[in-house]
Amino acid sequence: MRNIEEVRKDFPMLQGKMMQQHPLVYLDNGATTLKPRSVIDAVCNYYENYSTNAHRGDYDLSYFVDQEFEGTRQVVADFIHADVNEIVYTSGASEGLNTVAFGYGRKFLSEGDIILSSEAEHASCVLPWMKVAQETGAVMEYIPLDEEGRITVENIEYMMNDNVKVIALAQITNVLGNLVPIKEICALAHRYGAIVVVDGAQSVPHIPVDVKDLDCDFLAFSAHKMCGPTGIGVLYGKYELLEAMDPLLYGGESNARFNACGDVLLKDAPLKFESGTQPIEGVFGLHAAIDYINALGKENIHAYEKQLRDYAVSEMKKMDHIIIYNENNDTGIITFNVKGVFAQDVGSFFNANGIAVRTGQHCAKLLNEVLGTSATVRASLYFYTSKEDIDRFLDVCRKATMEACIDVFF
Amino acid sequence: MRNIEEVRKDFPMLQGKMMQQHPLVYLDNGATTLKPRSVIDAVCNYYENYSTNAHRGDYDLSYFVDQEFEGTRQVVADFIHADVNEIVYTSGASEGLNTVAFGYGRKFLSEGDIILSSEAEHASCVLPWMKVAQETGAVMEYIPLDEEGRITVENIEYMMNDNVKVIALAQITNVLGNLVPIKEICALAHRYGAIVVVDGAQSVPHIPVDVKDLDCDFLAFSAHKMCGPTGIGVLYGKYELLEAMDPLLYGGESNARFNACGDVLLKDAPLKFESGTQPIEGVFGLHAAIDYINALGKENIHAYEKQLRDYAVSEMKKMDHIIIYNENNDTGIITFNVKGVFAQDVGSFFNANGIAVRTGQHCAKLLNEVLGTSATVRASLYFYTSKEDIDRFLDVCRKATMEACIDVFF
Repeated sequence: MRNIEEVRKDFPMLQGKMMQQHPLVYLDNGATTLKPRSVIDAVCNYYENYSTNAHRGDYDLSYFVDQEFEGTRQVVADFIHADVNEIVYTSGASEGLNTVAFGYGRKFLSEGDIILSSEAEHASCVLPWMKVAQETGAVMEYIPLDEEGRITVENIEYMMNDNVKVIALAQITNVLGNLVPIKEICALAHRYGAIVVVDGAQSVPHIPVDVKDLDCDFLAFSAHKMCGPTGIGVLYGKYELLEAMDPLLYGGESNARFNACGDVLLKDAPLKFESGTQPIEGVFGLHAAIDYINALGKENIHAYEKQLRDYAVSEMKKMDHIIIYNENNDTGIITFNVKGVFAQDVGSFFNANGIAVRTGQHCAKLLNEVLGTSATVRASLYFYTSKEDIDRFLDVCRKATMEACIDVFF
Repeated sequence: MRNIEEVRKDFPMLQGKMMQQHPLVYLDNGATTLKPRSVIDAVCNYYENYSTNAHRGDYDLSYFVDQEFEGTRQVVADFIHADVNEIVYTSGASEGLNTVAFGYGRKFLSEGDIILSSEAEHASCVLPWMKVAQETGAVMEYIPLDEEGRITVENIEYMMNDNVKVIALAQITNVLGNLVPIKEICALAHRYGAIVVVDGAQSVPHIPVDVKDLDCDFLAFSAHKMCGPTGIGVLYGKYELLEAMDPLLYGGESNARFNACGDVLLKDAPLKFESGTQPIEGVFGLHAAIDYINALGKENIHAYEKQLRDYAVSEMKKMDHIIIYNENNDTGIITFNVKGVFAQDVGSFFNANGIAVRTGQHCAKLLNEVLGTSATVRASLYFYTSKEDIDRFLDVCRKATMEACIDVFF
């Protein structure tokens, strides 16, 4: 990978930003990431030089916007090895996952069908399916996690039967950062005629993802977790599934024609899912974000994060007052607690030392019982996290005793 | 209003931008608007100085984002005279209108109920309701338009009965730019126990809108049609209706708790509608856009557009080869054709002369029969449109004879 000091120069947020009189150490990349100059410039380029709508105009400026809008669709397709007509722009991973649940699930599930998920999932991966289950009479079932909170093919095999129609899982879980064997799960699911819906929000930004190799049926992710803008994400779906299912929204530009009798002819996928003005500067920014990540190389990003994580975890294991919940993982998410201290108080202590971590349930409220705690602290890395960041973080971990954490408030 | 030349200096797109070797005249403001420097700066400010998620962090940067995110909600509320908890962030007007159709309509409509709309509506205002009608057994009916394509209270009164549960209309229609008497329609609807859902996409950017005065039940609009970013919009709803209805999306941050048995407790409105990471820089930009518009004053904007429009229409009426479809309106939308020429060809002629107008059906495909044509040319103004822009436009109108329009292609 490019030299880390050079990489960091691309990020305005890493140029001497302070928090609580300390230089900022940003370790909340699982929530959202910082933006490189090239992404900011791409968004500004839209505002300053194009600033017109896509798919609507009959003049040159609008045509240029169309070119970039559709050209980026090809860039996204190449990024995950999909076909261009399998790429749907969404407002983010959440909308993508909801589109599948309501557009596919509501149409094709019925009483007695089983939707398989896990207790390690983000709310966006289970709540839409709970609603669909309620409406259709389908049943939600949960794959048992192993003692480290992992989803194993063995445990899914144990749950499989002919009634399982959908398996909805994250490729990397957002609390524990477990890498889930999606490829093997897809092979298993397809033997039973089930589809696999993948929440790629935590994986696509960090590891190589090839939807053809995985053979997953759907994959959703967000731009803002991979250096891009908020308000824009991607839903990949196998073309025949996209064609078969309903959109979540209806409106302008997604239909070919309609009349007052209620006859509506939708456009082909992916356009039938894209009603209304799309997040256009978001598309410009997403393009720049993918270019940036491609230039670094996802293998390099993953290897770099793993090395940094291994170093952090090996040091944290030496600290008696720290409980790590996922020490054997190989992604950039480290989940821990300080013994005897509520996670939010630990978060405040880190904040007081200039370090941004996330605390709480991380939108994965089913996991509490598995972990035996209602809240954890999550430090999540990205390729611009430096060894110095980790050393600062470790220093604060060492100091974060019960007495010190409580002392923040006095 | 501020001096127009001063206003134009705020817009990078108005600093000498060329199209087809002519200075750009941008008259497609009904599709989307140009952005002032202050909006671009607000978006960059998020990227360069905050760049963290909202409602998720336990550190200062995230707290500042929360402050701006929730502070802007109050700014939006004040902008349309709503209460702050009645303001839902959406991805745009289309998502807002879909949220009402599917969240309210699917839950509360049943067989035989009537949804009243018109043939002058944008697809986003009718297609979601057509789908809801199909699912619930409700019936779509269309208010007859008068000879100028207008919706009158009298014609609605004629259609009203106790089965009408929903009236879905734009406050300003997007093709003809008719100003619809929403206040009177709400009073009428409420006497029958119906709710009124207003598409404010073309009105909120251009005229003063006071939801308490109108007494409308829902109002949706988009930021990008009022100098703000794409990918962000607003749904206003009366609080008790927002509380009663379902969200369109389920996911993180919109629920208070859930368990594996499918018990889900959603947060109160508006948060229950905001699943997943929201368009955060969009909110920053929306705030700046509203500040910009407030500083100009909407009465001033409306008066300025009306004056400019009246001038344009009075000149166009002198041209024998031009058909105007909405000469008696008082908003900045002028819809016309060149006799004997297909609208798209007229659009190309305008483009060749540096003028951006929109041609086609403008997402209002039910209107074709009313207008007696399948496509029109729409020139739509905004407060930064200058008298010189209109003179350039009029010059090209004069030249846009059948011979000249066809000549573009040779």
